Amino acid sequence: MRGIIPKRIKGFRDSTPSLNKLKFDIINSVTKVYQRYGFEHWDTPILEYADCLGKFLPDVDTVEEGVYSFRNPEKEPVYTSDGKEMRDKWEHVVMENHFIALRYDLTAPLARMYAENLWMKYLNQQVNFKNAPLFRRYQFGPVFRFETKLDPGRFREFWQLDFDTIGTELMSVDAEVCMVLADAVEAIGLKRGTYIVKVNNRKILKGFLQHLNIIDEEIERSIIRVIDKIDKVGSTGIEEELGKGRQDSSGAFISGLDLNESSISSIIDFMINFQEIGKRKQVIERLKQFNIHNETFSDGISELEKIDSMLAGLRYNEKRVVFSPALVRGLAYYTGTIFLL
Amino acid sequence: MRGIIPKRIKGFRDSTPSLNKLKFDIINSVTKVYQRYGFEHWDTPILEYADCLGKFLPDVDTVEEGVYSFRNPEKEPVYTSDGKEMRDKWEHVVMENHFIALRYDLTAPLARMYAENLWMKYLNQQVNFKNAPLFRRYQFGPVFRFETKLDPGRFREFWQLDFDTIGTELMSVDAEVCMVLADAVEAIGLKRGTYIVKVNNRKILKGFLQHLNIIDEEIERSIIRVIDKIDKVGSTGIEEELGKGRQDSSGAFISGLDLNESSISSIIDFMINFQEIGKRKQVIERLKQFNIHNETFSDGISELEKIDSMLAGLRYNEKRVVFSPALVRGLAYYTGTIFLL
Repeated sequence: MRGIIPKRIKGFRDSTPSLNKLKFDIINSVTKVYQRYGFEHWDTPILEYADCLGKFLPDVDTVEEGVYSFRNPEKEPVYTSDGKEMRDKWEHVVMENHFIALRYDLTAPLARMYAENLWMKYLNQQVNFKNAPLFRRYQFGPVFRFETKLDPGRFREFWQLDFDTIGTELMSVDAEVCMVLADAVEAIGLKRGTYIVKVNNRKILKGFLQHLNIIDEEIERSIIRVIDKIDKVGSTGIEEELGKGRQDSSGAFISGLDLNESSISSIIDFMINFQEIGKRKQVIERLKQFNIHNETFSDGISELEKIDSMLAGLRYNEKRVVFSPALVRGLAYYTGTIFLL
Repeated sequence: MRGIIPKRIKGFRDSTPSLNKLKFDIINSVTKVYQRYGFEHWDTPILEYADCLGKFLPDVDTVEEGVYSFRNPEKEPVYTSDGKEMRDKWEHVVMENHFIALRYDLTAPLARMYAENLWMKYLNQQVNFKNAPLFRRYQFGPVFRFETKLDPGRFREFWQLDFDTIGTELMSVDAEVCMVLADAVEAIGLKRGTYIVKVNNRKILKGFLQHLNIIDEEIERSIIRVIDKIDKVGSTGIEEELGKGRQDSSGAFISGLDLNESSISSIIDFMINFQEIGKRKQVIERLKQFNIHNETFSDGISELEKIDSMLAGLRYNEKRVVFSPALVRGLAYYTGTIFLL
C-alpha cells in the first residue's frame, strides 16, 4: 500500500496564471496569422489507437517507447487491413482490448483524421493520391512523451501550436509555410533580424549523394544523421564519423560509416560550402556550379527556385527566409522541403 | 494482428472549426466574468496519480470504474502516509509502477494542487484548517470518463469550464458563486428569465431528517438519492421507494428504504411544500414555520439568510437566483450550499 500524498506526476507541472497568460497570448496572436492564410481550427482527441499514431517519434523505433500507451478498457473487434472485422474459425468476431495512447504530437492525429474522412472514398476509388482534397488546419493543445531522461526545463506534457497543409505537392504551399512562420514569430513580438527561417530540400542532398554513387537508403539515412551533428561535433567530427569512427568526450567509441575518402571529402566540401548564409539566388547559383545532372538534384534546385520566386515576389527577402543546403535535420520522414526556424 | 485503419476511438470526436469557435467564444466570454470576480487562470496536468484523484466520480465506487487508468511506465518510490519513502527489511526503498489516470474532472486536480502547495507547511504546523489561504481559480480543458454505455451526444472526452473558491467557510463566497453563475450565462447570451440559479443548503434536509429521528448517515444518503429522483418518478414513486419499494417500467423491482409511514408522509409533505418557487424571503419564512430547532436546521436557515441578504443588496433578485429546499442533488460530497443552474 502507499500513503495518499498530494503530488503531481514527475515531469508534469501546474500552469500558473502568468504562464497561462503568456501561452494564450501566443496562441491568440499566432492563430490570427494562421487564420489570415486560410487555416481553420480543428482539434483531435488526446487519446488515439496506438496503431494510428504510428512509430514516427524522433529517435525512437517502437510506438511503446517514448509514449504513454495502455489497453483500452473496452473490448472491440479486430480489423483486417481492408477494414473488415476479423473472424475466427467459428465465424465469431475476434475481440480485443486495443492499445490506445496519449498523442505524442499533433501531426499523427492529423494524418489519422484526414485519412479517416477519406478512407471510404479511397476504398471506393473515388479518391486517389492525385485528387486528394487540399486541407489546411491549425491545432493547439497538449502532447505527451514519456522521456526517460528529463533534462531541466523539459516536461512530459507540453503544448504544440501546429499549422499544416495536406493534399498537394505545389511549391506555393511550401513558400506559404515560410511566410506563415515569419509572420507568426513577428506577431508574437520578435523583431525582424532576430529570427530566420531556414529552408532546404531533401532532394538536394539525396541527388548529391546519388552523384557520389551512394544510393542505398539506409546508408543515406546514416549519413544524414551524421551530418545533422555538425553544430555539435564540427566538421572534423563529421569527417571521422563518415570514415573510421571516433572517440567521443566520454571516451566511448562511435563507429564510423566507412565511406571512401573521396566521398567523405566531397561531402565535407559540400557542407563547408554552405555553412555561411548568402542570398537565395547565389545559393542556387552555387548549387548549379556543382554540375550535377541527375533528376533528384535538378528537382531539388527547381523546387527551391520556385519558392524563391514566390517569396521574392511578395518581398520576403533574406532578412526573413534563407536557403541552407547543408540543413538536413536528422528526421527520417522528410522527403521534400525542410524548414527550420 | 490487426490491420491499421484510420479510426478514432469510440466515444471520442474530432472538433470542427465551427465547434471550436463556439467553444472558445464561450470560454472567452465566461472567463472574462471569472476574472472580474478575481479568479485566476490555473491549469493542471491531464494525467494524475490515480490515488490523488480519489473516488469521487458520481455513482461510481472505485477509482478504476469510469476512469482511464494505467500503470506509469516509470518505477517510483512507494510512500507512507506521512510522506516518507517506504523501505523493505533490507532498508531498500520500495519501488513500484504507480497507477496514473486521465483526470475525470477539474475539481480533484484542484484539490491535489492546493494540498500539494500546502502539504509541507501543514506537516510543519504552519497551516491548519482555520488559517488555510483563500484561493480562487478558474480552469478549462478536457476531462475523460470511460462510460460503458454511451448515450447519443455523450462523449468520453469533453471539456469543463470551472471556477472554485477554497479556503473559507464564509457565506459571501457562496453568494458570489450565484452571481458569477448568473453573470456567466448572461455573458454567453442567455437572456434574464430564461435561466435560473437554484440554491439550497444540505443542512436543511439533514436537520429536517434529524427532527424525524433519522440520523444514520447511510440512511440519510439513501433518502437523498431517492428524493433526487422526484423529477423522474414523481412523488408517488418517491413515496414507494421510501417505503416498501416499487416495480419500475421495465418490470424490475426496486427495493424500498422501509421508513415508517409518518416519516414518509413528512418527507413527501416537505418536498411538495417547496416544489414551486417563491420569493427567497418567503421560502425562509416557510422553513421557519416547521418549528424545527436543532442546530443543523437552524444553521441551514441562517446560511440561506446570509446569502439572501447579500444577493438582495446587490440586486440579484428571484429572476436570477432562487432558494429551492427540495433540491438535493444525489451527490454524496455536498455538505453545505448546493447550486444548480
